Amino acid sequence: MFRNQYDNDISTWSPQGRLHQIEYALEAVKQGSASVGLRSDTHVVLLGLKRSSGELASHQQKLFRIDNHVGIAIAGLVSDARVLSNFMRTECMKSKMMYDRPMPGSRLVNLIGDKAQINTQNYGRRPYGVGLLVASYDEGTGPHLYECLPNANCLEYYAISIGAKSQSAKTYLEKFIKDFGAADVDTLIMHGLHALRETLQQDKELNINNCSIGIVGKGENWRTIEGEDLKKYLDQLETGAPTTETTEELPQGEAMDTE
Amino acid sequence: MFRNQYDNDISTWSPQGRLHQIEYALEAVKQGSASVGLRSDTHVVLLGLKRSSGELASHQQKLFRIDNHVGIAIAGLVSDARVLSNFMRTECMKSKMMYDRPMPGSRLVNLIGDKAQINTQNYGRRPYGVGLLVASYDEGTGPHLYECLPNANCLEYYAISIGAKSQSAKTYLEKFIKDFGAADVDTLIMHGLHALRETLQQDKELNINNCSIGIVGKGENWRTIEGEDLKKYLDQLETGAPTTETTEELPQGEAMDTE
Amino acid sequence: MFRNQYDNDISTWSPQGRLHQIEYALEAVKQGSASVGLRSDTHVVLLGLKRSSGELASHQQKLFRIDNHVGIAIAGLVSDARVLSNFMRTECMKSKMMYDRPMPGSRLVNLIGDKAQINTQNYGRRPYGVGLLVASYDEGTGPHLYECLPNANCLEYYAISIGAKSQSAKTYLEKFIKDFGAADVDTLIMHGLHALRETLQQDKELNINNCSIGIVGKGENWRTIEGEDLKKYLDQLETGAPTTETTEELPQGEAMDTE
Amino acid sequence: MFRNQYDNDISTWSPQGRLHQIEYALEAVKQGSASVGLRSDTHVVLLGLKRSSGELASHQQKLFRIDNHVGIAIAGLVSDARVLSNFMRTECMKSKMMYDRPMPGSRLVNLIGDKAQINTQNYGRRPYGVGLLVASYDEGTGPHLYECLPNANCLEYYAISIGAKSQSAKTYLEKFIKDFGAADVDTLIMHGLHALRETLQQDKELNINNCSIGIVGKGENWRTIEGEDLKKYLDQLETGAPTTETTEELPQGEAMDTE
Amino acid sequence: MFRNQYDNDISTWSPQGRLHQIEYALEAVKQGSASVGLRSDTHVVLLGLKRSSGELASHQQKLFRIDNHVGIAIAGLVSDARVLSNFMRTECMKSKMMYDRPMPGSRLVNLIGDKAQINTQNYGRRPYGVGLLVASYDEGTGPHLYECLPNANCLEYYAISIGAKSQSAKTYLEKFIKDFGAADVDTLIMHGLHALRETLQQDKELNINNCSIGIVGKGENWRTIEGEDLKKYLDQLETGAPTTETTEELPQGEAMDTE
Amino acid sequence: MFRNQYDNDISTWSPQGRLHQIEYALEAVKQGSASVGLRSDTHVVLLGLKRSSGELASHQQKLFRIDNHVGIAIAGLVSDARVLSNFMRTECMKSKMMYDRPMPGSRLVNLIGDKAQINTQNYGRRPYGVGLLVASYDEGTGPHLYECLPNANCLEYYAISIGAKSQSAKTYLEKFIKDFGAADVDTLIMHGLHALRETLQQDKELNINNCSIGIVGKGENWRTIEGEDLKKYLDQLETGAPTTETTEELPQGEAMDTE
Amino acid sequence: MFRNQYDNDISTWSPQGRLHQIEYALEAVKQGSASVGLRSDTHVVLLGLKRSSGELASHQQKLFRIDNHVGIAIAGLVSDARVLSNFMRTECMKSKMMYDRPMPGSRLVNLIGDKAQINTQNYGRRPYGVGLLVASYDEGTGPHLYECLPNANCLEYYAISIGAKSQSAKTYLEKFIKDFGAADVDTLIMHGLHALRETLQQDKELNINNCSIGIVGKGENWRTIEGEDLKKYLDQLETGAPTTETTEELPQGEAMDTE
Repeated sequence: MFRNQYDNDISTWSPQGRLHQIEYALEAVKQGSASVGLRSDTHVVLLGLKRSSGELASHQQKLFRIDNHVGIAIAGLVSDARVLSNFMRTECMKSKMMYDRPMPGSRLVNLIGDKAQINTQNYGRRPYGVGLLVASYDEGTGPHLYECLPNANCLEYYAISIGAKSQSAKTYLEKFIKDFGAADVDTLIMHGLHALRETLQQDKELNINNCSIGIVGKGENWRTIEGEDLKKYLDQLETGAPTTETTEELPQGEAMDTE
Repeated sequence: MFRNQYDNDISTWSPQGRLHQIEYALEAVKQGSASVGLRSDTHVVLLGLKRSSGELASHQQKLFRIDNHVGIAIAGLVSDARVLSNFMRTECMKSKMMYDRPMPGSRLVNLIGDKAQINTQNYGRRPYGVGLLVASYDEGTGPHLYECLPNANCLEYYAISIGAKSQSAKTYLEKFIKDFGAADVDTLIMHGLHALRETLQQDKELNINNCSIGIVGKGENWRTIEGEDLKKYLDQLETGAPTTETTEELPQGEAMDTE
Repeated sequence: MFRNQYDNDISTWSPQGRLHQIEYALEAVKQGSASVGLRSDTHVVLLGLKRSSGELASHQQKLFRIDNHVGIAIAGLVSDARVLSNFMRTECMKSKMMYDRPMPGSRLVNLIGDKAQINTQNYGRRPYGVGLLVASYDEGTGPHLYECLPNANCLEYYAISIGAKSQSAKTYLEKFIKDFGAADVDTLIMHGLHALRETLQQDKELNINNCSIGIVGKGENWRTIEGEDLKKYLDQLETGAPTTETTEELPQGEAMDTE
Repeated sequence: MFRNQYDNDISTWSPQGRLHQIEYALEAVKQGSASVGLRSDTHVVLLGLKRSSGELASHQQKLFRIDNHVGIAIAGLVSDARVLSNFMRTECMKSKMMYDRPMPGSRLVNLIGDKAQINTQNYGRRPYGVGLLVASYDEGTGPHLYECLPNANCLEYYAISIGAKSQSAKTYLEKFIKDFGAADVDTLIMHGLHALRETLQQDKELNINNCSIGIVGKGENWRTIEGEDLKKYLDQLETGAPTTETTEELPQGEAMDTE
Repeated sequence: MFRNQYDNDISTWSPQGRLHQIEYALEAVKQGSASVGLRSDTHVVLLGLKRSSGELASHQQKLFRIDNHVGIAIAGLVSDARVLSNFMRTECMKSKMMYDRPMPGSRLVNLIGDKAQINTQNYGRRPYGVGLLVASYDEGTGPHLYECLPNANCLEYYAISIGAKSQSAKTYLEKFIKDFGAADVDTLIMHGLHALRETLQQDKELNINNCSIGIVGKGENWRTIEGEDLKKYLDQLETGAPTTETTEELPQGEAMDTE
Repeated sequence: MFRNQYDNDISTWSPQGRLHQIEYALEAVKQGSASVGLRSDTHVVLLGLKRSSGELASHQQKLFRIDNHVGIAIAGLVSDARVLSNFMRTECMKSKMMYDRPMPGSRLVNLIGDKAQINTQNYGRRPYGVGLLVASYDEGTGPHLYECLPNANCLEYYAISIGAKSQSAKTYLEKFIKDFGAADVDTLIMHGLHALRETLQQDKELNINNCSIGIVGKGENWRTIEGEDLKKYLDQLETGAPTTETTEELPQGEAMDTE
Repeated sequence: MFRNQYDNDISTWSPQGRLHQIEYALEAVKQGSASVGLRSDTHVVLLGLKRSSGELASHQQKLFRIDNHVGIAIAGLVSDARVLSNFMRTECMKSKMMYDRPMPGSRLVNLIGDKAQINTQNYGRRPYGVGLLVASYDEGTGPHLYECLPNANCLEYYAISIGAKSQSAKTYLEKFIKDFGAADVDTLIMHGLHALRETLQQDKELNINNCSIGIVGKGENWRTIEGEDLKKYLDQLETGAPTTETTEELPQGEAMDTE
């Protein structure tokens, strides 16, 4: 039986210079249902695919409000996400109290990175098991979209997706990325729904229960669209779906994502 | 002999991105006797199946009062439940003293989640071995029913069951969930008893000793019904029990629950 | 050679959701000599079987006074019992000093449970290796009898036994439990002695050296009966012992207890 | 090769409910040379067998003065004994300074038990490797003799022996225990020497170099008899030694002691 | 299966006097994309090769501003680099506040070394997984270029490269090192780009997206050249590239780098 | 391959009641070059055999001054000896400052024992790897000679030797021990040199470079004799050496020492 | 496969009384390039062999100034050396501030020994991986040369060498040691260079880049000779090199050094 002696402990390097525990935590993100983010020159839109927890539950939450100007979407361990979102809310409040101004998105994302890095260097901790998409609209610098991962990396993106089958969503986003900059919010949402649909299992469809949308942007605080309000977007989706061939052309894309 | 090298330590990820110790703690919940919760638009009812500790004992407690507006039902390690319920009582008292208002259920449940999450990320601790159903009636937002699990997830439900054979109870609840919203308390109780009965061993019956009921809702502080007071509900149960076929149709449901 | 990889550490769950170290500590209680407790509507009586430590020793102590209104009987590690009884005495004193009233039994037992639970959740500690029977007489609520075990469970009983062959004593107690409520102290004592006798080895008998009795109740502070004072009760025991067939009918009961 | 996986760590229970590390520490006591203690109604006498550390050394110390009214004899690790005797001296001094009265023997022995228990419950410590016989003469309650062992048990005895071949000494003591109560000090000493002689190797004899005697009692502070002063007792011993057959009758007794 | 028993723990020496965990961390640096640094008598230039994170992302950052007079380039774990650059920024600020002068580069580099060394000597930490090139321009001593590695070594260089295939860059730099001292900034940049090009995969080319340049020097605060501004340098590069034979002559050089 | 599972950890007892790590540390003492101590009624003399560290070094120090009235000789780890001698010097200074009198030798030796014992009971420490001979001359009680070992035992001796082949020295000392009490200092020294010579390898001789002598006694502060000053004693040694047969008679003595 | 179970942990003794981790750390010193030290009656000279880190680097530093009257040469881990030299500088500064006099070399060396010893006795630390030669010129006692090793030993020498092939240098030094006392500084330097040359690989030569010299002595603060200033000494070396046969006569000497 093969035994990897370097992968039990976050503070142990492998001979190849890898930290296996970080890589395993990234797997936890890939097992969460997908989230998608994309931005125009004025807005950021986040979308999340809600896994069914049966008829008995209210809907599982994929999007969280952090502040008026910040919202997040998650993929992975919900409890780790709650810890991080509580942390972000507290930091945003502190910024308001101490400096009388909203926390810039880049600063907030740096704080998450620092917090996550500690868990990658000290024996007895584990890396967080959740990935975050962070949407912010900052005075002066406008809309921003960041991805924060268990390896403590926080990168800025024009559009991105995390979670199960997120590679399919990314393929869609790359195809249409030129269109996002000048798009209005409704167009962004439709692109996001198309991308999110790519992450569905073969026989599933988006509906008013299994997805939610969050928006922040110029002159608009963070707000979410859920339930019946999704209907007008989903109805448009039904009619125009020429993008599904794309995933059929790229089965190896998904393979790459899970390897 | 197969040896899983990633499942001894709460701070170790498996290569598949799983935290096995959390999953094992969830097993502890499945081994406790079942609890059931369901809510109408005005009330929440919790029901617990008390395991016999023989004729010598007073009855084992499945329901606990936290505050006037909050009660819980448990499944799993009783001693862990006591620690968590002490914690909840203290937090509710603090809220009253500091803010002069009852702790909202959602806030309370978040605090439990944060406390439980710590035990899932630090070497040398173990996840709690108990699941909680939390019933609260909050000023303004009305009745709420939450499930809190060892993985630090706390979700809101319309109706839910935890513990041994809880899948059978859930099957019952899903069937009648449409009826709960407008139901009066007695109807909720009768549905709860029917669901609870589904979790019994083949040859067992509900009686005044092996179950207890807790209620909180509009204009009504948390109160429990036990012993002789249960009689009037159990008597109704005897007569009308057309739901037992359901479990016979679903042996694979139970299998799913324990796998 | 079979090796259980989940049972060395108190903070490790087995895949079946068990904490083996807690179960092993419960074994330590089963290896102590038996203690018996039973209560009427006005009194609680505890009885302990003292293992011979030879002719050279004063008698090994099985019963301990905690406060005027509280006494305990133990089974298992004597040194762990001493730590816990010191703790209980201190808590009772604190209660008197701070609130000017005796500590209620239920509160005291909760404190033991909390203290014991800590040792079941932190790496590097071990669960206590002792079971306690706690007898208290509280203003207002009257007599109480509790059992506190290494798993941090503390339950209230009408009558109970812990330690080696305690199942035989329980069988006796269940048979006569209906009689205890209205019994006077001497009758309680005689029932207790009968139950305790069931836990003896084949060829042993109760005598003034190997047992001791503790009583607390209405208008009566904790007091113990030992040595010559036991004679008048033991003499009655000799004459009437129709209960010994019971254990012969239930060899499988004992087997259950030790498995 | 048989490997016991439960005996390396003081905080690990075996499946049989045993703490092997405590049992192993008790072995260390059995490997020390023997000490004997016995008491009358007015005095306590301790005797120790000094192992030869060659002609070059002053005599190895087996008896230690703790306070005017307290002395001890040891068997096992000398360095652990020194730590414990320092602790006892400090506690006795504190008692005098704070309460202006000598520390009662029972209280002192309880403090040792508490200190020793901590080392039986925390990972990274080890149980003390020494047994103590504690002799005290207390105002009011008179003479006391206690045995304190690595398992943190502290019991009171009329007469007792610890260390190598102590079972043979106990056999002697049990035979004559009836005589001790009313005996004068010199008679106690002679009984003690007879008991101590039982622990010698086949071809060894007691002499003024290999034993020492300590006495505390009514009107008499702790004092020791060593060297030439032992002569008058040892001379009596030579003439009357009818007890040696006893050990020859009981080879299995010794076997029991070391198993 | 070969098992190295000395390489799991940063605080364990191998019999050959090696600390394997430090060597493994150095591997992490070799897996990052390359960075190049070189200096004249008046300026330091840093260049970094940005790995593509797809069309969706803004560019991955390889260069970081620390202070007006200090900038860095990195290779290895980005999250570790962020921790170290935050540390450096804080130290530079402290220097300004406390001594009212910029932190000298040599002092800053010493502080990094001290911080990194701690992680190489304490169990439970891991060495940082990132290499840094530090460029500073100090009052009085002029331009400095340092390399800081996970082994806590910080050396000064005239020109240096770290990361994947950095050996090829070093070979280029050694060839032209005589020319750097008197070179103007544009010449330094061109040499740096030539060196950086040596680290590319067979079929890749430098372009405005995959590289960035940082400059600090006499009369010039740290500034970076990225995107379109790179064009004028890259255009020159296209035309004159006689150095590519060098790497073909030295395949064993690369081999040395990764052994 | 035999594997002892009880000897890696200072806080683990073997089933036989042994602490192997202490025994292994005693081996370290046996590997140091020998030291010898002996005393008369007025003086103590210590002698040490200095291992050659080549012609390049000043002589390796075997004797250390602690205070005017205290000196030590060592065998084993020099660095551990330095820690302990620093400790002793500090304690002696404290005694002078606080009580205005020299620290009695017995008290000093007790402090060493306490300090050494801590390292024998706490996981993560190791026993000291050095043995000490402590010579003191105390007001009132006169000259004292103690041996302090890694097991935290500190015994008083008339004469003693530690280190490699110390058994041979002890054999000499036992033979002449009767003569030491009344001997003058020069006679003590000659006896000490004879004893020390017994510890030499077959073909080695004592000379002015490989031994040193320390003296403390009545009216004489600690002083050492080294180098040329040794000559007058070594010259006497040459002529009269009838004791060498002794070691030849006792090859098994040495064997005993190292087993 | 042979597995040494006693060599992973600095706090574990082997059955032979050895601390393997200390021995392994000494290996790290042997792998550093050599340093040489020698002293006359008035001066100390240190010489270090600088390993080439290529044409790109400034020279690797082997000698470090600690204070006006103290300098060191190192062999082994450079980062550990930096930590220790920072420590020494701080201690020297403290001495000046508190006592208004330079720290005596012997005191400084003792402080290093104490600091290093801590890392040899506590689990979770590792011994330093560097050897130091310390040169000091003290008021009153004149020039001193010390060697400090990872085993926390600090010895004084007339002349010494550490690092790779240092045995060859020692052989040279032993041959000429008689000449050093009265030598002037230039003669000391030439002897040092001859000794250092003995440590070179077969086909290497000393040059102005690969060695450096440090001097401290009577009336002369610590100063170093490097680069072009070395030329006049190296030129002399070329002409007179009759000592090279020595190493050819002693291949077994080197073997001894590395065993």
